[in-house]
Amino acid sequence: MIKKIRLSADIFRDNDREAGKNRRLFKKAGVFVVNLMGSPGCGKTTLIENLAKNYKGKIRLAVIEGDIATGKDAQRIAKAGVPVSLLNTDQVGNACHLSSKMIRKAYEKIRNTKPEIIIIENIGNLICPADFDLGENLRVSMVSITEGDDKVSKYPPMFVNAEAVILSKIDIIKHFKYNLKFVRKEIKRLNPNAEIFEISLKNKHSLKFFSDFLINKRTTTNTIYRLT
Amino acid sequence: MIKKIRLSADIFRDNDREAGKNRRLFKKAGVFVVNLMGSPGCGKTTLIENLAKNYKGKIRLAVIEGDIATGKDAQRIAKAGVPVSLLNTDQVGNACHLSSKMIRKAYEKIRNTKPEIIIIENIGNLICPADFDLGENLRVSMVSITEGDDKVSKYPPMFVNAEAVILSKIDIIKHFKYNLKFVRKEIKRLNPNAEIFEISLKNKHSLKFFSDFLINKRTTTNTIYRLT
Repeated sequence: MIKKIRLSADIFRDNDREAGKNRRLFKKAGVFVVNLMGSPGCGKTTLIENLAKNYKGKIRLAVIEGDIATGKDAQRIAKAGVPVSLLNTDQVGNACHLSSKMIRKAYEKIRNTKPEIIIIENIGNLICPADFDLGENLRVSMVSITEGDDKVSKYPPMFVNAEAVILSKIDIIKHFKYNLKFVRKEIKRLNPNAEIFEISLKNKHSLKFFSDFLINKRTTTNTIYRLT
Repeated sequence: MIKKIRLSADIFRDNDREAGKNRRLFKKAGVFVVNLMGSPGCGKTTLIENLAKNYKGKIRLAVIEGDIATGKDAQRIAKAGVPVSLLNTDQVGNACHLSSKMIRKAYEKIRNTKPEIIIIENIGNLICPADFDLGENLRVSMVSITEGDDKVSKYPPMFVNAEAVILSKIDIIKHFKYNLKFVRKEIKRLNPNAEIFEISLKNKHSLKFFSDFLINKRTTTNTIYRLT
């Protein structure tokens, strides 16, 4: 186990160095980068499809799409009219997360579309992606209420460093024994500054909140860029 | 990346050697061991609670419970009257899977209850646990229909080596756009020998099928033991 931890430290150090390079690259290009993480099937791709609709004609969006196998999600994003760069990790040992180096490669392919916001859809996994800085400006962790109200408590690393937490599929909450108040409290306990979004893809209003949040964050972040 | 792959190979080789030791240990003790893997919130713990009810007074069951943080699931299992050994991986770098060495340690704590079946509830993760042989007799992969009908295709490593695949929460399928025929076909494409169980925890009949399947598998496996 000691050996494993030492090896991991190497991997994290390499990744952090590459993340720093990404951050400088993104800053120079004036692009705001969001790392969207969450369980398999929590609704990440559907959320991006909806953001694409909201941003159409207003903000130049691009997507880096992470999947172990298949280009299914990338096809959905392309159909929504958004430039997309696909990363299939079955070519690198079925990796359970995206790394900074992979992100830079993917970015090169969509760079010429001059995106103002890039959303990275990370691999569907509530654990490993949390450990890998991709050089992003904002971390968003997403979990569906269908997974049960104990998930925030049981998977803390995914929530302690996220600026925003999305609880999805809120429209079918009545079919589940789900204590929403408890979950909100658990998120705030782990991460007092996290913004919480309770969304349903059937409720356009709830989506608009998140969509506006990203635009506001982008504006604030760019201001800070100019000051430094 | 080359370095990373080489390091991983070391980890897998170590784990496989330890898995072999587990296998011999389990065989000697005459215990049938099931590695239950699946997404966060797909219903693994609830399934085990229900198996506990079915086996009460008939089969000596024990559980090895994997979680990153908290003893919530272990408490649920204990409440169901089943001996349980908890493995919290936040003590080993938030590990995203269980390893053979961890299993042996956990087994030592429940060994004296002379279990006939042990269920290992792996960490809620549709990716990493698939890579780690724990010395089990049977692999079961579980995914909830609430995650969408593309999950089998998108996460193949979890399904290619599982003797059984469970599709859970089948009772609320009408609230989702879910093509069940397609999913069954995808499972069979990846793994022609997999047994498929479509279960709802509200339908005791569907649970009994799986419960009987484990008992049958145990009997067959023990027969093979005697022959070799």
